Amino acid sequence: MNAIAYQMDPLRGLAGLSTRTQEIPVAGPHQVVVKVRAASINRRDIMLMEGKYPVTMRPGVVPLVDGVGEVIAVGDGVTRARIGDRVTGTYFVGWVDGPQTQALGSQQYGANHDGWLAEYAVLQEESVVHVPAYLTDEEAASLTCAGLVAWAGLTKPVPPSPGATVLTVGTGPVGLFAIQHAKMLGARVISITSSPDKAERLRKLGADEVIDRKQTPDWENAVLDLTGGDGADHVIDAVGMITLPKSIAAAAYNSQVTLIGAFPAPAGAPTGDPLGGKYLALRRVAVGSRTDLEDMNRALAEHGVRPVIDRVFPFEQAAEAYRYFEEGDPFGKVVISLRS
Amino acid sequence: MNAIAYQMDPLRGLAGLSTRTQEIPVAGPHQVVVKVRAASINRRDIMLMEGKYPVTMRPGVVPLVDGVGEVIAVGDGVTRARIGDRVTGTYFVGWVDGPQTQALGSQQYGANHDGWLAEYAVLQEESVVHVPAYLTDEEAASLTCAGLVAWAGLTKPVPPSPGATVLTVGTGPVGLFAIQHAKMLGARVISITSSPDKAERLRKLGADEVIDRKQTPDWENAVLDLTGGDGADHVIDAVGMITLPKSIAAAAYNSQVTLIGAFPAPAGAPTGDPLGGKYLALRRVAVGSRTDLEDMNRALAEHGVRPVIDRVFPFEQAAEAYRYFEEGDPFGKVVISLRS
Amino acid sequence: MNAIAYQMDPLRGLAGLSTRTQEIPVAGPHQVVVKVRAASINRRDIMLMEGKYPVTMRPGVVPLVDGVGEVIAVGDGVTRARIGDRVTGTYFVGWVDGPQTQALGSQQYGANHDGWLAEYAVLQEESVVHVPAYLTDEEAASLTCAGLVAWAGLTKPVPPSPGATVLTVGTGPVGLFAIQHAKMLGARVISITSSPDKAERLRKLGADEVIDRKQTPDWENAVLDLTGGDGADHVIDAVGMITLPKSIAAAAYNSQVTLIGAFPAPAGAPTGDPLGGKYLALRRVAVGSRTDLEDMNRALAEHGVRPVIDRVFPFEQAAEAYRYFEEGDPFGKVVISLRS
Amino acid sequence: MNAIAYQMDPLRGLAGLSTRTQEIPVAGPHQVVVKVRAASINRRDIMLMEGKYPVTMRPGVVPLVDGVGEVIAVGDGVTRARIGDRVTGTYFVGWVDGPQTQALGSQQYGANHDGWLAEYAVLQEESVVHVPAYLTDEEAASLTCAGLVAWAGLTKPVPPSPGATVLTVGTGPVGLFAIQHAKMLGARVISITSSPDKAERLRKLGADEVIDRKQTPDWENAVLDLTGGDGADHVIDAVGMITLPKSIAAAAYNSQVTLIGAFPAPAGAPTGDPLGGKYLALRRVAVGSRTDLEDMNRALAEHGVRPVIDRVFPFEQAAEAYRYFEEGDPFGKVVISLRS
Repeated sequence: MNAIAYQMDPLRGLAGLSTRTQEIPVAGPHQVVVKVRAASINRRDIMLMEGKYPVTMRPGVVPLVDGVGEVIAVGDGVTRARIGDRVTGTYFVGWVDGPQTQALGSQQYGANHDGWLAEYAVLQEESVVHVPAYLTDEEAASLTCAGLVAWAGLTKPVPPSPGATVLTVGTGPVGLFAIQHAKMLGARVISITSSPDKAERLRKLGADEVIDRKQTPDWENAVLDLTGGDGADHVIDAVGMITLPKSIAAAAYNSQVTLIGAFPAPAGAPTGDPLGGKYLALRRVAVGSRTDLEDMNRALAEHGVRPVIDRVFPFEQAAEAYRYFEEGDPFGKVVISLRS
Repeated sequence: MNAIAYQMDPLRGLAGLSTRTQEIPVAGPHQVVVKVRAASINRRDIMLMEGKYPVTMRPGVVPLVDGVGEVIAVGDGVTRARIGDRVTGTYFVGWVDGPQTQALGSQQYGANHDGWLAEYAVLQEESVVHVPAYLTDEEAASLTCAGLVAWAGLTKPVPPSPGATVLTVGTGPVGLFAIQHAKMLGARVISITSSPDKAERLRKLGADEVIDRKQTPDWENAVLDLTGGDGADHVIDAVGMITLPKSIAAAAYNSQVTLIGAFPAPAGAPTGDPLGGKYLALRRVAVGSRTDLEDMNRALAEHGVRPVIDRVFPFEQAAEAYRYFEEGDPFGKVVISLRS
Repeated sequence: MNAIAYQMDPLRGLAGLSTRTQEIPVAGPHQVVVKVRAASINRRDIMLMEGKYPVTMRPGVVPLVDGVGEVIAVGDGVTRARIGDRVTGTYFVGWVDGPQTQALGSQQYGANHDGWLAEYAVLQEESVVHVPAYLTDEEAASLTCAGLVAWAGLTKPVPPSPGATVLTVGTGPVGLFAIQHAKMLGARVISITSSPDKAERLRKLGADEVIDRKQTPDWENAVLDLTGGDGADHVIDAVGMITLPKSIAAAAYNSQVTLIGAFPAPAGAPTGDPLGGKYLALRRVAVGSRTDLEDMNRALAEHGVRPVIDRVFPFEQAAEAYRYFEEGDPFGKVVISLRS
Repeated sequence: MNAIAYQMDPLRGLAGLSTRTQEIPVAGPHQVVVKVRAASINRRDIMLMEGKYPVTMRPGVVPLVDGVGEVIAVGDGVTRARIGDRVTGTYFVGWVDGPQTQALGSQQYGANHDGWLAEYAVLQEESVVHVPAYLTDEEAASLTCAGLVAWAGLTKPVPPSPGATVLTVGTGPVGLFAIQHAKMLGARVISITSSPDKAERLRKLGADEVIDRKQTPDWENAVLDLTGGDGADHVIDAVGMITLPKSIAAAAYNSQVTLIGAFPAPAGAPTGDPLGGKYLALRRVAVGSRTDLEDMNRALAEHGVRPVIDRVFPFEQAAEAYRYFEEGDPFGKVVISLRS
């Protein structure tokens, strides 16, 4: 009996998302076959679909890089997983450890290698990552992209000191993970949001201070006030070019401002000095390695931290999930469940 | 009216501790005069007294490097403190920031510069450090030595990742601070102690696992068991040469084992491979810089962490305080209060 | 007999540069008086004069931060220098070591503390730095600003690996020092210049490859070609906003692009994504600490490297030196000598 | 027609070295078959043979981890090498990048995976490393072990600054590479040797100062004298426990002393404080990753550095090569050539 896989033809919007039958894959050497239980959508999946991501989507690829499932077959030579293990995969196919390189960045699940929006997924053995037991499948399907880019953005090359101030800009999944990670690191967290309702939820997530950018349009000054005029030591800007000038204005001398994604620069992007006349570092990071993902999972487990899930859609309603991700203003991850 | 200062003549035991009258000091250029409210004893003060410390004690010096007081006078050019400020001082007279150097390590309050066991202390302006407002004077007099060496030992050159395992060996003040600091850093903490009573108090302080070395003499194996055979990522050994072989046996591949103090090596010190045949780094650190102390204070304040105080003696009973420090098996700092 | 000091009133161009008589200064506590032998001009001195620098010039201040002289008097408590020593000074008055902070950045010789364009200069003891014996006075008067910012830009937080590619943009003194420093670090150096004559001189200085931007306007592609398509691992852009987009286009994945100065952003500054859609770090550095300067001097001495001097003016012609600096298209430092 | 491979049965001395016929291997998925041109012996090969190495030698394994050859076949999925490429391999089978871990350290060519002393070798694709074109086969067969451990020992976690002092102890291949690498890094090099003849050769290799330990038995004091009393900033001790106390005595405050190999600790190993009462770090490193090897090769090529070859034996005389390695006091690598 055949299974179902979604496939994506880019540049056509959701019209490009279709299904096809899928034979149960055979595990090649050093490969693992996973029966998928859940997958989740990230901003990069939309960017891939729209042709706005640095890596080009292969037409017909199975989309999504975030997922979890049970290993049902292992190929020759596999030692990193056993049948029955619950696993997720890395973002990049072959990036195990060490710094990012261009070559490692070009091979990605859900982009030019089949991803997780299917009943069965095939991973290279070196991509397999076990997930903490205490997480639900929906939570465990939320780690690889948004969770890890927030982690790497905060901890590399050097994490903020306990007591340092971390500013998070944006309340998408990356922004929420950034709050949770920063609290594990012992930092003080200031978060920017756009509604009293979200503000309350950010506080529950751990944010020490929340600034509503609608009530306080010059929130960069509010951050300066909250830090005795110094600014934040570490900024995770998960919105992008539009907020970047304020993020930099709110950043401390010698601080690190990390830009998440933000491809391509929209009209209205900042002009002039990209560093706002300051002595600081602005950088863009590319998610993280397998080792980074394992380190993050270890930290989450030690602290019992749970990813925020907004809504779960059944497998048949994947297109609705995409639509909701784009239009529903979700607070937390949008997950697609494959369990009946 | 004159005040009183203690002075120490080394190599004579507590017989070397005496008092003398002290005129209220005049603040020279870039100096600050402090009316002392509390001071505390550290192992290094005993080692100085006994001639076992790398720096030689100047006969007649005012002892103790840990203290707190109120600024009552500032000299010409002082900008870092104002009259009325509650401050402590650095361990080293001139180490403001950056890595340790030999020259910076040689000038120390309470060793070759007058310290805190007096009604009035004089600090170089660059040594002044403000203390968090929520701390009592006794707590604020406990930061400079034991608190900071545990901080620097854990956080330099790179702190443990949240979720990493920190092993603390020893339940003196350095060991207690190491537990508190490691928890602020998000680490999992395993602590070695010697009694059920202390074990309970270590758990209350934040230790995730406590091993009683009397019940479990091969505690290094217990640490390996608790870490899935890997060992601890970071070890703070505040006991010394006697426990070091076990600390190293309990340490992970590529870990960092930090030795606190441990001068001189006693008889029965380890022989053979000092790294126990392992691939790891063993190091000794020399407390920390003023910037390190300020960073630690910021972290403590953000987390509301309080130093553990065992007992407070009045100024007149300083010798009793020393005696209790050495013989009373205190759990926490032994503080001398100057408030009437 | 009185001596002569220049003073500067900012915002008036060279009309603001005048002389006044100067009594031989008395060394206060922890101060050193230096009989100046040479001083040199940096871009920041022009920016200070024009009010385009982040720190405001105090009217009437003695300008210039780069100089060398002989210690002729030391104040109470001075241990870091002796009469007869040949010394230069730090850029910032009180930054001894460790990372940059805003407070440390605000106090600068030649800006809000009297600098070197005078027969006598006064330094805080902590600002004194001895210069290598093999350097002439003119060379030794060229280290503090351009030399050190190139050094810190290249070596902090982590230096390029031997064999890594360093791209230098600009042939002012910072760009020349960047070539010399990069060669000491074992890097391969690609330099951008604007004339065949300068190209030849850059090669003699150590540049492995030189690209003439007039002959090769798309020099960023030439850099990519020379690096097998990867781009440079480390970029020192000493020109600024105009060249920055090309510098970033020529930079490798995960590289570090350091912007020198570049205040304020001119019209025609880049718009859009300041990181050019790349995964890399862009930063601005603020010269360096005293320890950094000492480290650089040690490296220069070990390698026998000599700063490039373009032209030396006598003390009486300081205004001509400024004018030549601005209009003469010098290749190397413009120095003012006080030796008769 | 069949080829010949050597195999080793450990714990029998050179009697354990024998030959067997070898069919030309077939490349499995993600494997590469190499026609070997040269291989070389390292101290670790002797330790493996004698059962003194942390990893156990598999009886019958093809020995040696250092070699070079031409790719003659590639398996399914191989993208990192093509037929005709001249390549060497990594020390560890699967360590691509990032920090060392125990798991990565346990799988080694020439120990529990067939190595290079055979006409044909099989590498996992991820172990393949291309060698610089300017090196002879004998030189290219000398990089993986001694070259890389000296490189990683010097450059990780942070390389010495140009102008820093590196002390090398031992004139085996690791010691010689340490001199060459340190010079590429711009360091000043002090080397310890045991004869005037070797001293001369070390100087030619780049050592700035050479101390003959027979003429100067207290060479640690000579190092202190040569460094103004400070000691060396970085020590590579490639001898081991016997020299370690002197290496530590010659090391600077806050320095890094790297122990190479040194298994097991011999009788007469140091007792007492393994850090000699100093504030410094002592560590043992485990060669390096594939990325480290590629970085080193890039640096060697940029500088045109050539490994020192002492003597080349033909393939048939592999046992003589081992004997000469152990008894001949070679200065440089002992290589076995497979070219007729």
